[in-house]
Amino acid sequence: MRKVYLDNAATTPLLPEVREAMMPFLGEVFGNPSSLHDWGDTARQAVDVARSQVAELIGANAEELIFTGSGTESNSFAIKGLALAQQSKGKHVVVSAIEHFSVLHSAKTLEKWGFELTEVPVDKYGLVNPEDVKRSIRKDTVLVSVMHANGEVGTIEPIKEIARIAKENKVVFHTDAIATAGTIPVDVKELGVDALSLAGNQFYGPKGVGALWVRRGVRIMPLLDGGVQEGGRRAGTENVPAIVGLGKAAELAKANMSARIKQLTPLRDRLLKELPANIEHVMVTGHPQNRLPGHSSFCVEFIEGESMLMFLNMEGIAVSSGSACTSRALKASHVLIAMGISHELAQGSLLCTFGLDSTNEDVDYMVKVLPPIADRLRQMSPLYSKFIKASKGGK
Amino acid sequence: MRKVYLDNAATTPLLPEVREAMMPFLGEVFGNPSSLHDWGDTARQAVDVARSQVAELIGANAEELIFTGSGTESNSFAIKGLALAQQSKGKHVVVSAIEHFSVLHSAKTLEKWGFELTEVPVDKYGLVNPEDVKRSIRKDTVLVSVMHANGEVGTIEPIKEIARIAKENKVVFHTDAIATAGTIPVDVKELGVDALSLAGNQFYGPKGVGALWVRRGVRIMPLLDGGVQEGGRRAGTENVPAIVGLGKAAELAKANMSARIKQLTPLRDRLLKELPANIEHVMVTGHPQNRLPGHSSFCVEFIEGESMLMFLNMEGIAVSSGSACTSRALKASHVLIAMGISHELAQGSLLCTFGLDSTNEDVDYMVKVLPPIADRLRQMSPLYSKFIKASKGGK
Repeated sequence: MRKVYLDNAATTPLLPEVREAMMPFLGEVFGNPSSLHDWGDTARQAVDVARSQVAELIGANAEELIFTGSGTESNSFAIKGLALAQQSKGKHVVVSAIEHFSVLHSAKTLEKWGFELTEVPVDKYGLVNPEDVKRSIRKDTVLVSVMHANGEVGTIEPIKEIARIAKENKVVFHTDAIATAGTIPVDVKELGVDALSLAGNQFYGPKGVGALWVRRGVRIMPLLDGGVQEGGRRAGTENVPAIVGLGKAAELAKANMSARIKQLTPLRDRLLKELPANIEHVMVTGHPQNRLPGHSSFCVEFIEGESMLMFLNMEGIAVSSGSACTSRALKASHVLIAMGISHELAQGSLLCTFGLDSTNEDVDYMVKVLPPIADRLRQMSPLYSKFIKASKGGK
Repeated sequence: MRKVYLDNAATTPLLPEVREAMMPFLGEVFGNPSSLHDWGDTARQAVDVARSQVAELIGANAEELIFTGSGTESNSFAIKGLALAQQSKGKHVVVSAIEHFSVLHSAKTLEKWGFELTEVPVDKYGLVNPEDVKRSIRKDTVLVSVMHANGEVGTIEPIKEIARIAKENKVVFHTDAIATAGTIPVDVKELGVDALSLAGNQFYGPKGVGALWVRRGVRIMPLLDGGVQEGGRRAGTENVPAIVGLGKAAELAKANMSARIKQLTPLRDRLLKELPANIEHVMVTGHPQNRLPGHSSFCVEFIEGESMLMFLNMEGIAVSSGSACTSRALKASHVLIAMGISHELAQGSLLCTFGLDSTNEDVDYMVKVLPPIADRLRQMSPLYSKFIKASKGGK
């Protein structure tokens, strides 16, 4: 059976070059970077090289970069660590309604700790209006966090404008760039942000590693207390092989970014056009143009996303019905709800994300395989029967 | 030049079998365990197997185990998460004075958050007296944390007795078993603890992965907020290759534990005897018998540990002068100070930790190489000149 992986938003595979770069650090070069001997020095030098590679990807200074254990840790650390460090100035935090749960739930934790939280809405495309952010900022606002792009609907947010507003109001601004760093150009200076999260497994690097960049001079409270690693901001023995892999993935992403975008965008555009053309009751979610290059997302009416996933899986196709981090929570996506999509329609969410292994044949296969599955599931849907009855009754 | 790695407390190398087990997950099997398709299922099953392997190592139920990104994360999570979850009952926490900084600094963070902290002292061997723990428990005590063994001086603590005292007082008891799990027998039921931390790179597993075991029914507040991974207690995409490696390392540690202890103990005992016999002004630190099998530690009078490390490194020997997490902090070890050792003597701390690659020839080499280095450094030491003058004056 044909195997088609269209779930690169959940995780990308590791590039062979990245794995090659990691291998020595899973073997002979096993030292602890904190150790004061050759074994330690070699490991530390490798971590330093990776730090420069990742810094280069986002136009940052290497010493401002903190390696973490995942994108989720970067976000959790950023939201809690930045807010706690600025709390003498106030206890109000602003986030968008469509943030990843690692931002949203961290903000909810801050609420338990006496902070107040404002969630800025989005429009039907998932776009944040910078004016809404402006209106939400109060005298006691200490942190604004809006994601660079949403992993569920692919929409790219106007971060530059939002960052400018935060700066004008002297509020620290964090962006979750997990869906964008390594995929589209991300430059911390051009964006004008104060802190930025990224994750290795979103651009063909390893799992178990991420980074948080924090502009020099911006205070952050550690989340992992302990030793003096990462400038005393994130304790714990460095995950050397994963950090080296992240560095290599960053280097490759920077070097090949335009080629990758050129490969992924036409695949995305074909699917965004051909799925709705070949299946009834399908709508595209997210912004029609201003979206991640390999990212296509839909809602299929009258159908439960989970059943659709299972049937597609039986045909060898891997897709998802939302963020991987919430796929086992089985709730309608808070992102789609915030975009004004009904709970019923949100149940039929379908997310197809292309990667470097994707081809036009994958699109052909998807466009061939999904329509009969959708038909079959629709016939079984009580909602569809109701709709048909209503339509007939209306005639 | 001969290369001798005697810094296994800082990190162990990866066993070839562990690396082999990890390899598929750095290649073809790259799915996100949360994804609802074959790619995800295969990854999730591998994580489940590893969970059972680690649970088996410590006599725990697999579902009570939470994978983390490091031993430091396990400890930071335990101290902050357990204390915050019980804070309605009180805000007093007890730890020993010789805990790793990931416990100690997390406890200090709790102090900033309005908790009170009692540090229980240790004797000259680094032993905690269970009666001291008993005396320190108050009506508002919600958490006691004492490490199973200290990584700097090797002393194994009377955890069973301390756990019993905590239980009698209905206080949650956590133990940092990072130095013991996978090295000596650790059974959560026999120890009678409520929560226990361990780390992969302490027993020939990978860096970047640890685990926190929390007994069913004991509440803990997440440190990393986000998705519903690890039963909603630790968010973030699972580091599948590292988790698989940790599982394999746990399986091997359980199977070969007695053989390993039999290999390491005589090496330790030889060095503990022969270094003081061959070098003047050397004392053993930690408990003479009740200590980790591969662990030898000393203080060399009139000498700075860091210079000693550099000279030994030039002879191809890797050792350390304390915990790797603090080696770049260049302060006298809080562990040695708590044991009543003077700041001056604590500067000459030397830690030699054997591993599965260690041989009797390594001991021979160390015993041959260190004396002339120590002599040379001592001759350069102003403290030693003072001591010699005083001795002569006293004659």
